[in-house]
Amino acid sequence: MAGHSKRSQIVEAGLDLVHRQGFASSGVAAIAVAGGAPKGSFYNHFASKDVFGVAVLDKYFEEVRAEFAELLADTAGTPLGRLQRYFDLLREGGTCEGYARGCLVGNFSAEVTPTSPVIRARLQSILSEWRDAIAVVVQQAQDAGQARQDVPAGTLAALIIDAWQGALLRAKVERTSAALDGFAQVLLPSVLGADTR
Amino acid sequence: MAGHSKRSQIVEAGLDLVHRQGFASSGVAAIAVAGGAPKGSFYNHFASKDVFGVAVLDKYFEEVRAEFAELLADTAGTPLGRLQRYFDLLREGGTCEGYARGCLVGNFSAEVTPTSPVIRARLQSILSEWRDAIAVVVQQAQDAGQARQDVPAGTLAALIIDAWQGALLRAKVERTSAALDGFAQVLLPSVLGADTR
Repeated sequence: MAGHSKRSQIVEAGLDLVHRQGFASSGVAAIAVAGGAPKGSFYNHFASKDVFGVAVLDKYFEEVRAEFAELLADTAGTPLGRLQRYFDLLREGGTCEGYARGCLVGNFSAEVTPTSPVIRARLQSILSEWRDAIAVVVQQAQDAGQARQDVPAGTLAALIIDAWQGALLRAKVERTSAALDGFAQVLLPSVLGADTR
Repeated sequence: MAGHSKRSQIVEAGLDLVHRQGFASSGVAAIAVAGGAPKGSFYNHFASKDVFGVAVLDKYFEEVRAEFAELLADTAGTPLGRLQRYFDLLREGGTCEGYARGCLVGNFSAEVTPTSPVIRARLQSILSEWRDAIAVVVQQAQDAGQARQDVPAGTLAALIIDAWQGALLRAKVERTSAALDGFAQVLLPSVLGADTR
């Protein structure tokens, strides 16, 4: 039990470290120390750094999942309004440090996929689950005649997440909200075909 | 002169390495060796790893710049058609290794910006230059009544690049063309407000 709780502490502190400075930049000794464990003890808790990477990603995605669970439970307003509110909430989580952290799912997609098949596989299932959740609301928008109907809801949902990830990348570079404003005001409504022009 | 040419060789081989496996994952010894230089000679050629990172990014962006110079010189067909052709060309460059490499500008945005102010500053000027080039064609589309006019061309151009970068991230995860198909068929025309629905 002590071992399990130490592992959780390492995952939690390691998530913060990896989100701040990247996966490859975070050495196993620094990760162990951040979690309050001896410098050399990393491999007592994780069979490999990739196994740790998956654990960190799962921990991060728990929060993403909690946020889209709220989106799905939300029944106030139009589907588009709910999606906008959802992305506004996600965005609030990233304002600290001037958007420098971005989304761990996007960061890992950029940095870790070429070298880690196991993390890439986990990202694939995470992106599917996220897309399916967004697709429920996109489908509601389509059924209400508030979104284009010539593209399947799942396809639109995946493209919305793509646009979001791209905006987060630019925000990491610019350290301003411009890209996220553009996402909310232009990208999201226009992908849905819901803009009010 | 020999020193200069050796530096160029390290930048060229280092670009390939960094594009394949990430910046932090590419150690300075491996970078030197890839460029045919002695293992310990990296710092004879670069004052820091960040200086090398900027050189690699500049080298990479030379190609991106050559491609958008062709876009700007292109006069055949509609502005939207030219933009679509342009992104089709960019895409062809990434099909090897199943889209695993992605765009170095996006990869660096995700991985390196939190830890390197100098690389972040260079990414900022690169994104501005790229946006301005795309904006010329977006403006042509607006003037021809083929794109929405309620959002400035520069804003639309930046959002198009964001959407492109996001699609490339997903392609790195899925290793299929689905995200890039979605960009070409849905994201690009809908951001421009040019879809034919």
